[in-house]
Amino acid sequence: MSKRTTYCGLITEDYLEQEVTLKGWVHNRRDLGGLIFVDLRDREGHVQIVFNPSFSEEALQVAETVRSEYVVEVQGVVKKRDPETVNPKIKTGNVEVQVSNIEIINKSQTPPFAINEENINVDENVRLKYRYLDLRRQELAQTFKMRHQTTKSIREYLDGAGFYDVETPVLTKSTPEGARDYLVPSRVHEGEFYALPQSPQIFKQLLMISGFDKYYQIVKCFRDEDLRADRQPEFTQVDIEMSFVDQEDVIEMGEELLQKIVKDVKGVELEGSFPRMTYAEAMARYGSDKPDTRFGMELIDVSELGETMDFKVFSNAVNSGGQVKAIVVEGAADKYTRKDIDKLMEFVNIYGAKGLAWVKVTDEGLNGPIARFFEEEHVSRLSELTQAKSGDIVFFVADSVKVVAQSLGALRLKLARELDLIDESKLNFLWVTDWPLLEYDEDAKRYVAAHHPFTSPKEEDIAKLDSEPENAQANAYDIVLNGYELGGGSIRIHNEDLQAKMFEVLGFTEEQAREQFGFLLDAFKYGAPPHGGIALGLDRLVMVLTGRTNLRDTIAFPKTASATCLLTDAPSEVSDKQLDELSLRIKH
Amino acid sequence: MSKRTTYCGLITEDYLEQEVTLKGWVHNRRDLGGLIFVDLRDREGHVQIVFNPSFSEEALQVAETVRSEYVVEVQGVVKKRDPETVNPKIKTGNVEVQVSNIEIINKSQTPPFAINEENINVDENVRLKYRYLDLRRQELAQTFKMRHQTTKSIREYLDGAGFYDVETPVLTKSTPEGARDYLVPSRVHEGEFYALPQSPQIFKQLLMISGFDKYYQIVKCFRDEDLRADRQPEFTQVDIEMSFVDQEDVIEMGEELLQKIVKDVKGVELEGSFPRMTYAEAMARYGSDKPDTRFGMELIDVSELGETMDFKVFSNAVNSGGQVKAIVVEGAADKYTRKDIDKLMEFVNIYGAKGLAWVKVTDEGLNGPIARFFEEEHVSRLSELTQAKSGDIVFFVADSVKVVAQSLGALRLKLARELDLIDESKLNFLWVTDWPLLEYDEDAKRYVAAHHPFTSPKEEDIAKLDSEPENAQANAYDIVLNGYELGGGSIRIHNEDLQAKMFEVLGFTEEQAREQFGFLLDAFKYGAPPHGGIALGLDRLVMVLTGRTNLRDTIAFPKTASATCLLTDAPSEVSDKQLDELSLRIKH
Repeated sequence: MSKRTTYCGLITEDYLEQEVTLKGWVHNRRDLGGLIFVDLRDREGHVQIVFNPSFSEEALQVAETVRSEYVVEVQGVVKKRDPETVNPKIKTGNVEVQVSNIEIINKSQTPPFAINEENINVDENVRLKYRYLDLRRQELAQTFKMRHQTTKSIREYLDGAGFYDVETPVLTKSTPEGARDYLVPSRVHEGEFYALPQSPQIFKQLLMISGFDKYYQIVKCFRDEDLRADRQPEFTQVDIEMSFVDQEDVIEMGEELLQKIVKDVKGVELEGSFPRMTYAEAMARYGSDKPDTRFGMELIDVSELGETMDFKVFSNAVNSGGQVKAIVVEGAADKYTRKDIDKLMEFVNIYGAKGLAWVKVTDEGLNGPIARFFEEEHVSRLSELTQAKSGDIVFFVADSVKVVAQSLGALRLKLARELDLIDESKLNFLWVTDWPLLEYDEDAKRYVAAHHPFTSPKEEDIAKLDSEPENAQANAYDIVLNGYELGGGSIRIHNEDLQAKMFEVLGFTEEQAREQFGFLLDAFKYGAPPHGGIALGLDRLVMVLTGRTNLRDTIAFPKTASATCLLTDAPSEVSDKQLDELSLRIKH
Repeated sequence: MSKRTTYCGLITEDYLEQEVTLKGWVHNRRDLGGLIFVDLRDREGHVQIVFNPSFSEEALQVAETVRSEYVVEVQGVVKKRDPETVNPKIKTGNVEVQVSNIEIINKSQTPPFAINEENINVDENVRLKYRYLDLRRQELAQTFKMRHQTTKSIREYLDGAGFYDVETPVLTKSTPEGARDYLVPSRVHEGEFYALPQSPQIFKQLLMISGFDKYYQIVKCFRDEDLRADRQPEFTQVDIEMSFVDQEDVIEMGEELLQKIVKDVKGVELEGSFPRMTYAEAMARYGSDKPDTRFGMELIDVSELGETMDFKVFSNAVNSGGQVKAIVVEGAADKYTRKDIDKLMEFVNIYGAKGLAWVKVTDEGLNGPIARFFEEEHVSRLSELTQAKSGDIVFFVADSVKVVAQSLGALRLKLARELDLIDESKLNFLWVTDWPLLEYDEDAKRYVAAHHPFTSPKEEDIAKLDSEPENAQANAYDIVLNGYELGGGSIRIHNEDLQAKMFEVLGFTEEQAREQFGFLLDAFKYGAPPHGGIALGLDRLVMVLTGRTNLRDTIAFPKTASATCLLTDAPSEVSDKQLDELSLRIKH
């Protein structure tokens, strides 16, 4: 075995006339006029290697036996290609290697799908079962190169800024707040369980109490929840915490970090600070706490029409404390037939909206089934409020505040995608601030933390915890990129009494709070510094930066929506001996 | 809240006459002649701050109320200390801060143990329960700073050398080989379990098959084994794999990596290549596969005495295929009484040795209970073989090869520690090569892999797999530092037939091999490159580099020997609802 000279994908004119040794995979083979052309591939790309009886009869004979995905080693001389065969699309396109010697290192059966075709039309389950082959596709392999660059960039920034990378436990304690825990039975302590962490939240706070001052970790977290396309049972979090800081400090650090990542990974220099918006404004203007600001089509409050128009759908909504809101789809009047709009109506139903009203604006006035409810004054008021002009469609949802936001917010995104209104080259970061501290959980009949129970209320809202908890705001902030929530953080509670109060508001008895979080309450007794931080979802960040839409493409060995690994067939049954050692029995 | 100027521990003469803002913990407080002196501490160290009515009456009054571990913010001017109060032991020892303003940020109860005393004599269980306080001790905090530097150094080297950091799954498949798995019940797939990985071994091999070429990960691994002082249920591995390499390539990379770490973390330049030793030589000379080469006292084979001496203990051992080996403890004849030696005898009993023979060498000949068995020729032969001289003790173990190695190897270490023969400033790296491929497991009555089932046999030993598997050597290597196994690796099997053969030798039926490792055998069908790698135990590496002897000191939130977290009280009981969702019942 000789040493390889360099990667196949790096053979350029720098190597002209040099004898090189290359090792890689046969990407494809073409036999032409007694010659054999092979694209030899490795992680850096591929290079054309040529077998010609005048270079080596023997090598040509071996080349006749190679097939796709064989692993070979070759020696040969790098030559300029004939001008007419130059391939400007690839780095190595000006050269070829004239092979004097080839050795087959390993053979390959015909793969279940071709590696050398882009956008292959193969069932994802097959690709997941043969993940090691799918990962050979340059498109996917590039994603992991960029993921590596992303974590490298993150570490460079945080190391440079004085953060310590500290590991926190994976085998930890189950807590009832938040999502469902993955449990790990203990063999030594019969009937007891560890839990896999949903985040290192409490440990990073303890590290602040220990005086570590600045902590980070790129760390696996776990949630045993029903999975959607953009969720995985295990996901990676960039977890950051700082002492003696306020919200501005964390936001400033977060912007510097994200700007460096974008520069290192995308080569893009982002100018100035990221825009900010309060939670209330985001919900009002976009119907979303993670607005995609790459396009307009904002939600417009036209509730006043409900007060003056003789249209029950509008007036009922307003009278029962709800809203009427509209979005204007510019120039789309001709693009949406009644049938199309019926489908949009079904779409908003998913988000709880009972209906979707609409008018088309024409030079002659409004068109559509509800146009007749609009008196002249309403038409002109609508025009003033929405700036809708001839050729536009205006969609309305009249419902509770929550349903209006959810349904119109979702419709806005759907229409923008359908009408191709989104500039995919943009990277629109946005801070969403001033979150509510609590949400009322209708099922549990109690307040739950909007972020988590360790988030501090705004100083001036602490008094509201007793009187009107629903109106207390938090020192919490989310960072949004192109409509994806990249992460969020908060300034934490660092005072024992306030933390105890918070547990009380969340419906914990004193005993429950102590049993679950006693060690944290204790830690606050011994000189806890003010602290706060942020956590970013690495998988999602990589997804957006690499322009993918499927979170699985950013994870080397992902799981399906039923949390199965199709490659290894995990989870699987275990032996009775294993269950016995854990004192467990399966309950059928 | 003002911004702090810098860390307390960084206030040097650079800040003389400047007004600074500091935040930190009250390390201690001394009231002297109407003044108050406080050492204010943060992660970088501490600085003396002084309260004097002439600086601020108000600040002095507040200072009278502060106690140890209070968190405070102060403003003041940095001044030179009086010459007689300079403390040359600390960075800030030339200066003090004359405080004009103090604010108490958070109070502290009296901690369960003092933070400001080194080598505190406190029960480890108390320190683990209040881990966040123990981590405030500079000695321990420094370990985590060095751990951070270590991982940073590792990443810098590997990133620079073209390795990609790729994450592999934590929820994976249980396999019966190796140690006991931690299991994670699946909620979606009733009666099925994930396992936490003992190492990412198979995934990193799959990444090589995918063409990633160079992979690394600093990753948590898990073993549900009974714990010893130097084991934790979760531990961190520096996991590395490379394609198209042989043993020399991996060893060269490993040396470069370790040399960079030692330089970055300890400031020590290691010269040249690390020494190497075969497994057979290490066992023969040191009775250990991870010899501590910082001192001599090697094992000397004196079996020939068993053939000529009329001493049953020696002759029986030799006649039954065993050995007689000796170690010489120089100048120790006066240091060990018969009573002391009786204790050493008990010590070797632990390792299976039935006895410990010994002689003291004097100017007049040999002394001790077995001296009389030594005829003149034996005395002179012993002298030739061992070079023992007057004043030395020679210890002998006569037993099976294995027991001789284990017991004398352990005794050698014990004596060296007792007699302070080890130069603690040394960093003795050593490669141990040419490992046996297999070990015979007396309990299981079958061969087990000495490293793991994916380790390749030496090319020339493949034939031995059928005829004499016990004599097959592996392309495997361990890296040892000061008698600790830092890690190990191997060139892997990349051929389906050889891997199948290996499973067969290990006693797998074809069906079992397919069920457990079918996906790996399949992957070998599609063009697997030759590959190999290494894995280093990060916790242990940090332990040795920081001069600690307890692995727990290198882990921020460690577990006890019964795998309990005394801080959070994990593992713990979970609710019936949680068990129901997992279809599990506890079997009492």
